[in-house]
Amino acid sequence: MTKGITQRAVGETVDTFLLIKQSTKGVTTTGNPFMSLVLQDKSGDIEAKLWDTKDEHEAMYAAETIVRVGGEIHNYRGKNQLRIKSIRPAKPEEKKSISDLVPSSEKSTDELLEEILKYLFDMQNPQIQRITRHLLKKYQERILTFPAATRNHHDYVSGLADHVVSMLKLGKSICDIYPSLNKDLLYSGIILHDIGKVFELSGPISTSYTVEGNLLGHISIMVTEISKAAEELSIEGEEVLLLQHMVLSHHGKEEWGSPKKPMIKEAEILHYIDNIDAKMMMLDRALEKTKPGEFTERLFPLDNRSFYKPNVQ
Amino acid sequence: MTKGITQRAVGETVDTFLLIKQSTKGVTTTGNPFMSLVLQDKSGDIEAKLWDTKDEHEAMYAAETIVRVGGEIHNYRGKNQLRIKSIRPAKPEEKKSISDLVPSSEKSTDELLEEILKYLFDMQNPQIQRITRHLLKKYQERILTFPAATRNHHDYVSGLADHVVSMLKLGKSICDIYPSLNKDLLYSGIILHDIGKVFELSGPISTSYTVEGNLLGHISIMVTEISKAAEELSIEGEEVLLLQHMVLSHHGKEEWGSPKKPMIKEAEILHYIDNIDAKMMMLDRALEKTKPGEFTERLFPLDNRSFYKPNVQ
Amino acid sequence: MTKGITQRAVGETVDTFLLIKQSTKGVTTTGNPFMSLVLQDKSGDIEAKLWDTKDEHEAMYAAETIVRVGGEIHNYRGKNQLRIKSIRPAKPEEKKSISDLVPSSEKSTDELLEEILKYLFDMQNPQIQRITRHLLKKYQERILTFPAATRNHHDYVSGLADHVVSMLKLGKSICDIYPSLNKDLLYSGIILHDIGKVFELSGPISTSYTVEGNLLGHISIMVTEISKAAEELSIEGEEVLLLQHMVLSHHGKEEWGSPKKPMIKEAEILHYIDNIDAKMMMLDRALEKTKPGEFTERLFPLDNRSFYKPNVQ
Amino acid sequence: MTKGITQRAVGETVDTFLLIKQSTKGVTTTGNPFMSLVLQDKSGDIEAKLWDTKDEHEAMYAAETIVRVGGEIHNYRGKNQLRIKSIRPAKPEEKKSISDLVPSSEKSTDELLEEILKYLFDMQNPQIQRITRHLLKKYQERILTFPAATRNHHDYVSGLADHVVSMLKLGKSICDIYPSLNKDLLYSGIILHDIGKVFELSGPISTSYTVEGNLLGHISIMVTEISKAAEELSIEGEEVLLLQHMVLSHHGKEEWGSPKKPMIKEAEILHYIDNIDAKMMMLDRALEKTKPGEFTERLFPLDNRSFYKPNVQ
Amino acid sequence: MTKGITQRAVGETVDTFLLIKQSTKGVTTTGNPFMSLVLQDKSGDIEAKLWDTKDEHEAMYAAETIVRVGGEIHNYRGKNQLRIKSIRPAKPEEKKSISDLVPSSEKSTDELLEEILKYLFDMQNPQIQRITRHLLKKYQERILTFPAATRNHHDYVSGLADHVVSMLKLGKSICDIYPSLNKDLLYSGIILHDIGKVFELSGPISTSYTVEGNLLGHISIMVTEISKAAEELSIEGEEVLLLQHMVLSHHGKEEWGSPKKPMIKEAEILHYIDNIDAKMMMLDRALEKTKPGEFTERLFPLDNRSFYKPNVQ
Amino acid sequence: MTKGITQRAVGETVDTFLLIKQSTKGVTTTGNPFMSLVLQDKSGDIEAKLWDTKDEHEAMYAAETIVRVGGEIHNYRGKNQLRIKSIRPAKPEEKKSISDLVPSSEKSTDELLEEILKYLFDMQNPQIQRITRHLLKKYQERILTFPAATRNHHDYVSGLADHVVSMLKLGKSICDIYPSLNKDLLYSGIILHDIGKVFELSGPISTSYTVEGNLLGHISIMVTEISKAAEELSIEGEEVLLLQHMVLSHHGKEEWGSPKKPMIKEAEILHYIDNIDAKMMMLDRALEKTKPGEFTERLFPLDNRSFYKPNVQ
Repeated sequence: MTKGITQRAVGETVDTFLLIKQSTKGVTTTGNPFMSLVLQDKSGDIEAKLWDTKDEHEAMYAAETIVRVGGEIHNYRGKNQLRIKSIRPAKPEEKKSISDLVPSSEKSTDELLEEILKYLFDMQNPQIQRITRHLLKKYQERILTFPAATRNHHDYVSGLADHVVSMLKLGKSICDIYPSLNKDLLYSGIILHDIGKVFELSGPISTSYTVEGNLLGHISIMVTEISKAAEELSIEGEEVLLLQHMVLSHHGKEEWGSPKKPMIKEAEILHYIDNIDAKMMMLDRALEKTKPGEFTERLFPLDNRSFYKPNVQ
Repeated sequence: MTKGITQRAVGETVDTFLLIKQSTKGVTTTGNPFMSLVLQDKSGDIEAKLWDTKDEHEAMYAAETIVRVGGEIHNYRGKNQLRIKSIRPAKPEEKKSISDLVPSSEKSTDELLEEILKYLFDMQNPQIQRITRHLLKKYQERILTFPAATRNHHDYVSGLADHVVSMLKLGKSICDIYPSLNKDLLYSGIILHDIGKVFELSGPISTSYTVEGNLLGHISIMVTEISKAAEELSIEGEEVLLLQHMVLSHHGKEEWGSPKKPMIKEAEILHYIDNIDAKMMMLDRALEKTKPGEFTERLFPLDNRSFYKPNVQ
Repeated sequence: MTKGITQRAVGETVDTFLLIKQSTKGVTTTGNPFMSLVLQDKSGDIEAKLWDTKDEHEAMYAAETIVRVGGEIHNYRGKNQLRIKSIRPAKPEEKKSISDLVPSSEKSTDELLEEILKYLFDMQNPQIQRITRHLLKKYQERILTFPAATRNHHDYVSGLADHVVSMLKLGKSICDIYPSLNKDLLYSGIILHDIGKVFELSGPISTSYTVEGNLLGHISIMVTEISKAAEELSIEGEEVLLLQHMVLSHHGKEEWGSPKKPMIKEAEILHYIDNIDAKMMMLDRALEKTKPGEFTERLFPLDNRSFYKPNVQ
Repeated sequence: MTKGITQRAVGETVDTFLLIKQSTKGVTTTGNPFMSLVLQDKSGDIEAKLWDTKDEHEAMYAAETIVRVGGEIHNYRGKNQLRIKSIRPAKPEEKKSISDLVPSSEKSTDELLEEILKYLFDMQNPQIQRITRHLLKKYQERILTFPAATRNHHDYVSGLADHVVSMLKLGKSICDIYPSLNKDLLYSGIILHDIGKVFELSGPISTSYTVEGNLLGHISIMVTEISKAAEELSIEGEEVLLLQHMVLSHHGKEEWGSPKKPMIKEAEILHYIDNIDAKMMMLDRALEKTKPGEFTERLFPLDNRSFYKPNVQ
Repeated sequence: MTKGITQRAVGETVDTFLLIKQSTKGVTTTGNPFMSLVLQDKSGDIEAKLWDTKDEHEAMYAAETIVRVGGEIHNYRGKNQLRIKSIRPAKPEEKKSISDLVPSSEKSTDELLEEILKYLFDMQNPQIQRITRHLLKKYQERILTFPAATRNHHDYVSGLADHVVSMLKLGKSICDIYPSLNKDLLYSGIILHDIGKVFELSGPISTSYTVEGNLLGHISIMVTEISKAAEELSIEGEEVLLLQHMVLSHHGKEEWGSPKKPMIKEAEILHYIDNIDAKMMMLDRALEKTKPGEFTERLFPLDNRSFYKPNVQ
Repeated sequence: MTKGITQRAVGETVDTFLLIKQSTKGVTTTGNPFMSLVLQDKSGDIEAKLWDTKDEHEAMYAAETIVRVGGEIHNYRGKNQLRIKSIRPAKPEEKKSISDLVPSSEKSTDELLEEILKYLFDMQNPQIQRITRHLLKKYQERILTFPAATRNHHDYVSGLADHVVSMLKLGKSICDIYPSLNKDLLYSGIILHDIGKVFELSGPISTSYTVEGNLLGHISIMVTEISKAAEELSIEGEEVLLLQHMVLSHHGKEEWGSPKKPMIKEAEILHYIDNIDAKMMMLDRALEKTKPGEFTERLFPLDNRSFYKPNVQ
């Protein structure tokens, strides 16, 4: 398999199809127009400059355009950049599709769904199970293809489902060690906690925040969705309230966007599981790009820390 | 009209009907049982001790019992207390009702409703008006009788409606001064912002927090209610989202329980109006009990400040 | 009326008189000298670069020079800039004056004074009235022409008086709704609270902080001024202290530069009124530049929030 | 088996051996001397008052004395107390030993050791394994009998070893889910992280802080111990540094007593595992004492939250 | 010399003249009136209860009354108390004066003044010297007798002057080590920094906060006083501003009551000197009452820390 | 003596030997390679750009190379830069050594050692003296040549020893004023507090953080070193613990990297002395570069404040 754009070393030449992820016009200090592009394939993205551009280039090289690019990798302020030597839009007959050029889960949506259903079928409480299944089915397509975030972790096609599956595994092993936990509540909390993202975010590709996402946030949206689901299923009782609270409190603190702190045991554990899974992904990503004996770049969502990659493996 | 229990001076003797607001059993350091009572009438409440109680007294003098009490006002650690000389439960034939012995708004529920409707009729945007009217009607009885809080401010029968009316007046005058404000949004935000309290709190009297109130909070409950109302009225569009955001953000900051900070101008102003009205009531209450030239007790919800009552009036 | 420099669209050509607000020398990455100019007229300001400058240009195009500029509006990193095609200093015979080229209140200083006096005449307490009038008169010219800040809000000629007038209106309507407030104290607090700015800031145009402003701040300066006024008028008594406290505490918290938090009711309300008026101006300004359905740029003094401009008006 | 002292209901009479955990002299408001005792057995502890005591009682009923007590359970301010009717020191011929009257792990020290060794034997890196084994052996007796804290969680005989065993299980399952983790580092970190407690705390019973514990803390003590162990075993290299860092950073933040935040992946995970295990014990303990549908008392080390015990199990 | 009341051991009997520092009426849980007294002599103060008091006792044993008391020292909750066996007001012919019964500086006011003047005469800058001398003279009597605080440190007669003298010594030695410091500014800052206390506090004995002290604070009061002094002496120029800034910023941070942080080098150092001198006194006081090998009680103004008193001296 | 590179005025021409402190490759916005150099001599450092560089220049002008440079001082964004007109590596026969081109203490290492020993010989407690002497001797060379930091203060050859000597002087004068301080503890604490820096930092020149420094920090390293020293000298007893605590707590707060706050009086004072000495150096440095009547640049380690340099000297 061909090496991805982020796996190339400085000095390597490149001739490949890439997707324009971002495109920004600029003017040099001497007054000449240029464009800053972020180009990506499945492996990730890289920056590139297009010098001495003309007005028509702006439309030609807009975001979400597939282009054929020739160039060379060089290093600019400690980061790889692509020095463009040739560039042109892909031709229809080259049959390149966007989904071939964006990062996505290593599992298919069918596999992801199957894994989630395994935990759903393991639930004993019929109310919890029915609400969970209802919402899973109602938004199934989006749940299986959306990312979990616009950046930092699980920020790729099907990232949300990947995150849920990984958390469910962790949830199961914690329930085995601490049997006083209510497995149904925890599994359902894990499955539902971030479904609000399918309203908060714009879609699987070139993901941004929706107005609804900005003004309400995925947590509040989801609390309302659980209420609607319960109404649609004519379910009443404490289970509805408990699931709403699980979702509401999963950021752990008011400062982090949860209007209530966790007040049931399973909600507290959900918050931890969410954190561990997100941090493991961020750390693995950053450490992959780091040599043994060196430190990663500063990781903003990890309190801006640099992590050390030991020589000892 | 007879002086209320909180208006009596130290040394005055009392013989009147009072409602037991709280009742707690204790044991003195020498091992004798006693009861701590909080007794109230319309004017407010006062503490009292019942010494050398027997087991049967616990049931006889439980909370929400009306009693006839004789005694004398004395001062204990800077606060008035009632030294009980005689006490007995009220007799059915004395026809005392709880509503005569709890603080409540000076206005009738009819007057309060009429004032609120005046602002409702002033709205131009039909979607905003319909959602507001729908929710007002759906929970009308509770909205007109509930307090706005369990203590600190508007913590009495119809306190919620009093708070809303006062805020509407303030809202109107601010819209007059800053005409760029959307009056409909602001009025509706004021009317709806605390309706979630009718779920969060247990009722107009002996008010406590419900489980739902503790686990979800009035803000999240109300965001869902607006969504339901819109569905019931088949209203779609930005208005629903804006009203949800007004309610969601009215505490102003994540730390104060709003999962999103205000992000529309009217939401920012709603937060200010809410604050001014609550603080004015707390300050007026505390200053009423303070002599000119002296400081109030420390007021916890006002950053624990003591306020000075000037001699200059 | 001609369109102001900030009202021009990208691509429009310009040939007009502008005032140099700021002028900074630079060197390009290739070692050539250039100048960064901020040019303004009544409508606001715009950036521009002057390439390949010579040593004599520094004096010729210093701050507070009026120039005739020809050029074109273009967009640089999301902000409008002026691409200069021709520039020369204005000639004496062109009779351009600085006051025609700086933003200022829409009201004349006479109108502003008249409005403030209306509230002054409404005061009942002679001590409060006399101190207020004395200070108003003593610094009248500066009070009527200074801005209230170097940026963010009311940062234009007569901005301070505009701010005071708007706050007085708000103060009056709040006193009407909460009659327990002492109107005299509140009005005087509003008029005096920011007069220290006429010492803290350098003047109505090209405003910067004075050394005195940096080392003492407008709050402490004004507390001393009130003391001097009282001495000059031989006024003693609580009024002096109360007015000093109103000014001292109007930033609301120690962290925001008030060495004491508000400890009288009117001081608490003054803090709110000041905030509402400043925020309304900042929000109106930012929203004017924003299209319906979009978010403003991040507003630093509003906790770095972006505000949404609804489509619903 | 007889019911423990904390399992008795209000009103039950008691005649049993108990250990005096704390003993404090007091004087009633009327000037009479009394003693406040905290009495315990394996189930936990209860407060009791001894009225009208004499001087000789102070020595007779000092902490760590076993006594035979007759009395009755009553409720004081929402907490159970023991009303003492008869009390005398245990007689030597009654053969009561302190270890029968203090809470301790449900597992024997042999079982605990065996479980820990299982994970030790699973390590692959000889340096990490040798350092861990060395320290485990050096302080084996204390490690197997000390509590992990003076209160809140694992605050009983062998609590430290219980905590370590439970964390090792959790660590194993997390390594299974995230195979990029270095199992040896994580296991060793778990085993070593709190060994400094055997210096910080005074012993398994009547545990208090030592002067060394107060002035240095278990974290710094243990960092030095690892250095000594490495020297004793002539081990050099990165492993020593990594283990020191694991211990050093396991409180997660400077504010919580770690002079460095975690900077290797396994240290970050160690911090989470430690938290989850401590919180699960605190929550289980508090919820055991709570009825379904009610809230626990406020739990100080859990941000002072009250947790809800659902009716749904 | 007789031992002071705070130097007596538990069990000692006492028959001596004491000053009533505080006097509070109470009621026991059984309804009997009593009084809580705080009694003092030069060595410090001690609590005492007066049981079964009558109405006339309130006036007889009011604060600032000298009494002859017989009794015994006993220990109550870890603190010494005086068990009163006999008490009566001192008789005029016993010629006891309050100043013999309050703690005060070990130096006379003449000695204190002389020490301060030594540093004053050492100043070179005539403006700084004249302002300092003027204010020292204007409030000389109060400066030499007031405490520096109501509690914690230098809270005794002439405590303010003691604090200033000790800080001047420290200031001199720091100027010797860092000769770039402006000695005149630093000395003047030290002398003036707390003179506002003679307005903020009520007097040398039974010291409380004045209304002016509460509403303005000693810092703002003193900034105004420096301005008045300069006017009275017709001094203009930077020196006035610098001295005002020294006083204004000496608490170091906005949160600690300085509306501006130190912005000149000498102001920064003044803040440190003030802190060191206050902390040394608090620590010496607390450690005097502590045995070697033990910890002091928690010291609130030192971040609530307990300090260890080493066995090593 | 020739003027140092930082003492030159704008416009002066330069022809001198300089050391390359930092060297970074860049690309201009027009795609041409260049290098950013930081060049230094004993007086400090200055930035310079090398335009149109070739690949071989990277090795030729790497950090720690001595070069002969001709050029001119110009001002770029308020800071002096060197415009390079000629540059070449120094030739061996020119006999320039790095130590002639890096800032260093004005005192020789012999003088510094002699000063430190004076205080060492003044100690009375043999245990404290022996531990201090042992560590001083063990790491003597490094202690006498290392800087105390990588930037901000004492960041030059022998900066650590300079810092210690200056702190010892201050410590002595504080002990003279507050005789209750234990001089031995304080002197030893001063000498030892930063010795961990000789492990935390890479060396006297081109100083960076070591991996050990990043993962453990100089405080924890030194606590272990004291323990080892005590073991090597067979010293037991409280002195060891006290010295470890002095070092451990000298940053004053957990947030600043001390896992325990100071809990002995001398540790509290050590923290203040450390602060005063560091701040005096930072202030003197910043004020040297500032004209009277102006403000320094913002100083990050001083809460980002700008300091004013008075005209009054």
